[in-house]
Amino acid sequence: MSIKKDLLAVGHTALDYIITVDEFPKANNSAPMKTMKNLNGGAAANVAMVGAKLGMKTGLLSAVGCEFINSHYHKDMEKLGIDTDAMIISEDENTSTAFVMTNNNQDQISYFYWGAAKEFHDGVVPRDKLKEFKVVHLATGDPHFNCKSGIVAKEEERLVSFDPGQDLGMYSPKKLKEVISNSNILFGNHHEIKRIQDSLGVDINDLMDLGPEIVIKTCGKEGSFIYSIDEGKIEIDSIYRPAVDPTGAGDSFRSGFLSQFINGASLEESAKFASSVSSFVVEKQGCQTNMPSYDEAYNRMIDFY
Amino acid sequence: MSIKKDLLAVGHTALDYIITVDEFPKANNSAPMKTMKNLNGGAAANVAMVGAKLGMKTGLLSAVGCEFINSHYHKDMEKLGIDTDAMIISEDENTSTAFVMTNNNQDQISYFYWGAAKEFHDGVVPRDKLKEFKVVHLATGDPHFNCKSGIVAKEEERLVSFDPGQDLGMYSPKKLKEVISNSNILFGNHHEIKRIQDSLGVDINDLMDLGPEIVIKTCGKEGSFIYSIDEGKIEIDSIYRPAVDPTGAGDSFRSGFLSQFINGASLEESAKFASSVSSFVVEKQGCQTNMPSYDEAYNRMIDFY
Repeated sequence: MSIKKDLLAVGHTALDYIITVDEFPKANNSAPMKTMKNLNGGAAANVAMVGAKLGMKTGLLSAVGCEFINSHYHKDMEKLGIDTDAMIISEDENTSTAFVMTNNNQDQISYFYWGAAKEFHDGVVPRDKLKEFKVVHLATGDPHFNCKSGIVAKEEERLVSFDPGQDLGMYSPKKLKEVISNSNILFGNHHEIKRIQDSLGVDINDLMDLGPEIVIKTCGKEGSFIYSIDEGKIEIDSIYRPAVDPTGAGDSFRSGFLSQFINGASLEESAKFASSVSSFVVEKQGCQTNMPSYDEAYNRMIDFY
Repeated sequence: MSIKKDLLAVGHTALDYIITVDEFPKANNSAPMKTMKNLNGGAAANVAMVGAKLGMKTGLLSAVGCEFINSHYHKDMEKLGIDTDAMIISEDENTSTAFVMTNNNQDQISYFYWGAAKEFHDGVVPRDKLKEFKVVHLATGDPHFNCKSGIVAKEEERLVSFDPGQDLGMYSPKKLKEVISNSNILFGNHHEIKRIQDSLGVDINDLMDLGPEIVIKTCGKEGSFIYSIDEGKIEIDSIYRPAVDPTGAGDSFRSGFLSQFINGASLEESAKFASSVSSFVVEKQGCQTNMPSYDEAYNRMIDFY
């Protein structure tokens, strides 16, 4: 049986409120917001959205509140043909939400709401849905659910990619090792890969011995490093663009990389394409505001490299 | 021509985020939200929703963002049959939003976003829509637009009620006097009525000479006072209920009062019914969470008085 769809992203769908104020209010005071933007976010949703925009058939497995259904965000997903059939819907809690307030000094305060994501914990991994996809990408989300999803995906011989991102602190070393052992590709920025190595007490080669054939370390404008059992270490320059907002760069890189890799591109080709994709995303505020089409990303890639 | 509908509320529709945290984050830190509730709010919307629940045919004239259309809030309005045809839709800004954060010490911080409400300023008053309603209620909103709406409603010989509420500081004395002169009923809590008198340098009788035949001063659990040219001063006890959240009590009182008054009830009967309506609303968190039906409000009223 041929596998019909490309990438299922597992993890957070979130709403991001990006707010500016003159100054933060003290206790028992209020502040007018100068600007408020309500942006689509959440690492798994970013990966699914960018991937769909690039032409992949993507799906999304997140835990969201019932207010999400038929929301504008949901409709944005439907417009790109994202399969959201397996979403976990919470009756009681709203979709994960972040408020990020910035004052005139460029200081930031943020508030995070886990909300519906708590439904992940006892969620059942939808094996039949996972089987529809070539890659299962485990993004920031619930460590326990990600772990279970990795096990099922590996049992079903799907390509498993894992990006614990800022959630690293939520994984015990044991849980982290377990998810990594079920992964084919491990993504992280340079801080995160170092933290994983420290946590498990391993070097890059030991890390690959645990499971993943490929470890990809992204270093922002310094480019990216790919470590693989077959090809050793490969270094790829980034396509530098003045970053208006770096949020979502990593997620879009992962999606860009996987979109090429599953279609037979080399590690180097996949990473160059990925760098091009993320160079678009950082040009505008928000993770899903400036997603390139395949042609846009391809053309910038061949212009640069 | 008979007038087919009852009450058009003019002013804010807003989204209220009610949040609890252990403590407020300092600059460049973040805090997890313990709870986050997304509640329907905005004074004009509260009046229209409570009125519709009580059986009135209500309409709403607010300036909202395009994300409002077909949102859950919009659907809640449609379920109650509220006429939202005349809503002003902003292409650029989101619907007015408030974040209210409370920490473990019960200190509060709030952030307010005016957003789409700025579209009121240059908005055209929809005369034909106003003519469909017996009462035009001017709630918190844009002073200039409220003033224009009052003029049109008076020209069309509609009953005009006015509740500047917490927006009082946005009215110049001249503007305040102009709106009041076009109003038949002026609502305010005891602080607000005093502030209006101070601002205009008038006593209650002078205030009525400016325009309104009826001035209604609500004093929370102390009850309410009605001043009218025909009947002098009437005092009504409140129906006391332990208040979980007093927000929205005033709006629901206004809606309850008008629902009876336009159908021929006396001032006293209307205020007793209004007190019953607001006694329901304060029992649950949020302005529209515990709106009574007509029968519920009526039964509690006759039990109490």
